[in-house]
Amino acid sequence: MEFLTGVKQKEVLEIGALLLPEMVGREVKVNGAVHAIRDMGTIAFVVLRKREGLVQCVYEPGKADFSLKELREGGAVEVSGVLAASEKAPGGVEIRMRAVVILSEPVQAMPIPISKWKMNISLETSLDLRPVSLRNIRERAKFRIQDGIVRGFRDFLVTQGFTEIHTPKIGARGAEGGANIFRLDYFHRPAVLAQSPQFYKQMMVGVFDRVFETAPVFRAEKHNTKRHLNEYTSLDFEMGYIDGFEDIMAMETGVLQNIMGLLKKEYSRELAILDIELPDTEKIPCVRFDEAKRLASEKYGRPIRNPYDLEPEEESLIGRYFKEEYGSDFVFVTHYPSKKRPFYAMDDPGDPAFTLSFDCLFKGMEITTGGQRIHDYHMLLEKMAKRGMTEEGMEHYLMAFKYGMPPHGGLGIGLERLTMKLVGEDNVRETTLFPRDLSRLEP
Amino acid sequence: MEFLTGVKQKEVLEIGALLLPEMVGREVKVNGAVHAIRDMGTIAFVVLRKREGLVQCVYEPGKADFSLKELREGGAVEVSGVLAASEKAPGGVEIRMRAVVILSEPVQAMPIPISKWKMNISLETSLDLRPVSLRNIRERAKFRIQDGIVRGFRDFLVTQGFTEIHTPKIGARGAEGGANIFRLDYFHRPAVLAQSPQFYKQMMVGVFDRVFETAPVFRAEKHNTKRHLNEYTSLDFEMGYIDGFEDIMAMETGVLQNIMGLLKKEYSRELAILDIELPDTEKIPCVRFDEAKRLASEKYGRPIRNPYDLEPEEESLIGRYFKEEYGSDFVFVTHYPSKKRPFYAMDDPGDPAFTLSFDCLFKGMEITTGGQRIHDYHMLLEKMAKRGMTEEGMEHYLMAFKYGMPPHGGLGIGLERLTMKLVGEDNVRETTLFPRDLSRLEP
Repeated sequence: MEFLTGVKQKEVLEIGALLLPEMVGREVKVNGAVHAIRDMGTIAFVVLRKREGLVQCVYEPGKADFSLKELREGGAVEVSGVLAASEKAPGGVEIRMRAVVILSEPVQAMPIPISKWKMNISLETSLDLRPVSLRNIRERAKFRIQDGIVRGFRDFLVTQGFTEIHTPKIGARGAEGGANIFRLDYFHRPAVLAQSPQFYKQMMVGVFDRVFETAPVFRAEKHNTKRHLNEYTSLDFEMGYIDGFEDIMAMETGVLQNIMGLLKKEYSRELAILDIELPDTEKIPCVRFDEAKRLASEKYGRPIRNPYDLEPEEESLIGRYFKEEYGSDFVFVTHYPSKKRPFYAMDDPGDPAFTLSFDCLFKGMEITTGGQRIHDYHMLLEKMAKRGMTEEGMEHYLMAFKYGMPPHGGLGIGLERLTMKLVGEDNVRETTLFPRDLSRLEP
Repeated sequence: MEFLTGVKQKEVLEIGALLLPEMVGREVKVNGAVHAIRDMGTIAFVVLRKREGLVQCVYEPGKADFSLKELREGGAVEVSGVLAASEKAPGGVEIRMRAVVILSEPVQAMPIPISKWKMNISLETSLDLRPVSLRNIRERAKFRIQDGIVRGFRDFLVTQGFTEIHTPKIGARGAEGGANIFRLDYFHRPAVLAQSPQFYKQMMVGVFDRVFETAPVFRAEKHNTKRHLNEYTSLDFEMGYIDGFEDIMAMETGVLQNIMGLLKKEYSRELAILDIELPDTEKIPCVRFDEAKRLASEKYGRPIRNPYDLEPEEESLIGRYFKEEYGSDFVFVTHYPSKKRPFYAMDDPGDPAFTLSFDCLFKGMEITTGGQRIHDYHMLLEKMAKRGMTEEGMEHYLMAFKYGMPPHGGLGIGLERLTMKLVGEDNVRETTLFPRDLSRLEP
């Protein structure tokens, strides 16, 4: 009988191992994709693309037992040769090629110059050719940063006693109301796709006190903008036993601090590739909605058109104000008008026209919506009645409150938006592996 | 201007802090849900439910400045009192109550005895009352174990150089074929819900070499069984530059070892509550499909009815065989028949009627399907043609191969099934927070 005992060390080396000083001069074996071949006549450079970065190999006729013609960009190969120091090569080392094993071959030449630093192709082309355009080093780095953001989010919440939950995306009704809801046939019953895990995460506060979920949500928005997607990844958390909604903002600040710390520590390669300067998250200013509007209006001379709404341009000016006045890329804007928030938002007892809720703006764009929720059953029914909502279809949600729920609140962070602002893009599709919008259902 | 600077220490204590030896005799403040009130006449026990477990509080009339009648099961409270040693209390300490602040009150008494060790309610009732039935300590513990499984999966893959991806759940076509696909209207275009992230994770191997995703998948299975859900969480990974499909089984073994290690280290409380003995994952036997069938058939006298299929009862007997003969709860069954696997499975060059693929059985049930995939463009087209498939709608998937893909493979683990078998349940709904099946779309 054969047995599997776990992951074994392989003979082929990863980049981390190649960079150890004692490796120079040794015979090494490395695999990777042929990212670029640069034939200089007397010698040629063969650049391998590996998950950790690029490896430069040098081909010199007569020193290798194969012909350069055997290699094709896009192929997967295993290269053997001697590791040599080379100041100009990535990581300061290169492999003098001796032999190669072709693991796999492409059938066509690359349709776009993925080995260039910037490909200079349109977003449309980049999205149409996603399986290959992402092979570009800069494109790929954005999604490594995204990987770090999600890790930083989860890791921090785990240290704070949160439990990860997995809630259904198919349901009988939406949590957020409104028209932007996808409908489907569920065994001849009408069903919808989840606009958010809102109801479920609140119910689970009654079970685990603190919960989070990182999962897709679906919004049938009928307009194409640079900041909206019809499917996106929502980083959600919800926590009980709060003293106030400040506890939620404090938790998000901790999350953001942990994300930036993790990126700095473990994603320096990608930060360098994308030339990202991490934002300061040591202290994040916090300002009331109406005050934020006033400050931005006064400083930039833009009249307040609607005291109950925050237009994208106003968000942008508020972001600019707090960058200029306080040096902060982030700002919490609190006390959103009650009529702009869902029924479950807790109204400010001091002024029920406003809520104990907030948005977090990052470089002038909303990346988070959060706040305290109503935990009292009767108060919840009252608010629903005031909005003309019925209890029908809400029985399970209301059940949690009927049998007792602690004071609680939470938030949802749009992963693609946070990534977009962090890596300096201006269209959320740039930081979505396979975006879904009005016109795009593929790839 | 106010600023948020991160998470601040609160005056209220968590259970971890109560258990420090120096705390006995001190005045403490603790919040939680009133899990049970046991009035013994002269004194009463008030048990608080917190995320880390239960805390026993003792109420003695005259020693507290409130009446026991003010407390209701299901309410959320903040208790003040003196911490005392108590052999019989959970953790060996109890709080002698002095004062209480009511944070929130229920409006009805609990409909099920959530504070009992076993509630003795039907699965149907438990699912109908999910927001409260999960407040039972044993119910909740199953999902803490599930939380640990997902952490153990991800954490291990991160150490192995994997990148987390988020792929779309709405698409133009399914990856796995067959009839079990949910359809929806996407802005007047036909669309489907993802049966698996298969195509996307393969495409992303060309970008990141190693990727994983933990996300919902959707299967419109038209039969109700104890092992099927219409929506479940799939733990997927896919890795390039493999030497063979053994590399994938080795990686899964590493994943399972890490999961069990993490559970042992950080989830001992839940393991004890559920009386779980963790399975040994040091070495996992690996047997060919046909050989596994033969061994089980010979030992248990069950004739092989179909040499190309594995019935649930056969899976169960194979699991039993390897437990009895090798003491292993896990077994890899390899070389599944080609006609039972999707087109993208790599056929065994030595015998193309079988594939370089495997299932992992855990206690006699399939929890994983994986294998090597075809990476050669022409071979893929050939296999598709042989199955009567057209390239239409597959252009983006095929694009990845056209421009070069390394040898690769991967797997998908059904989270709810793995949890079910680990905690000793026999219906996958028991280990799903909010299951979706033919008849259940709520809560």
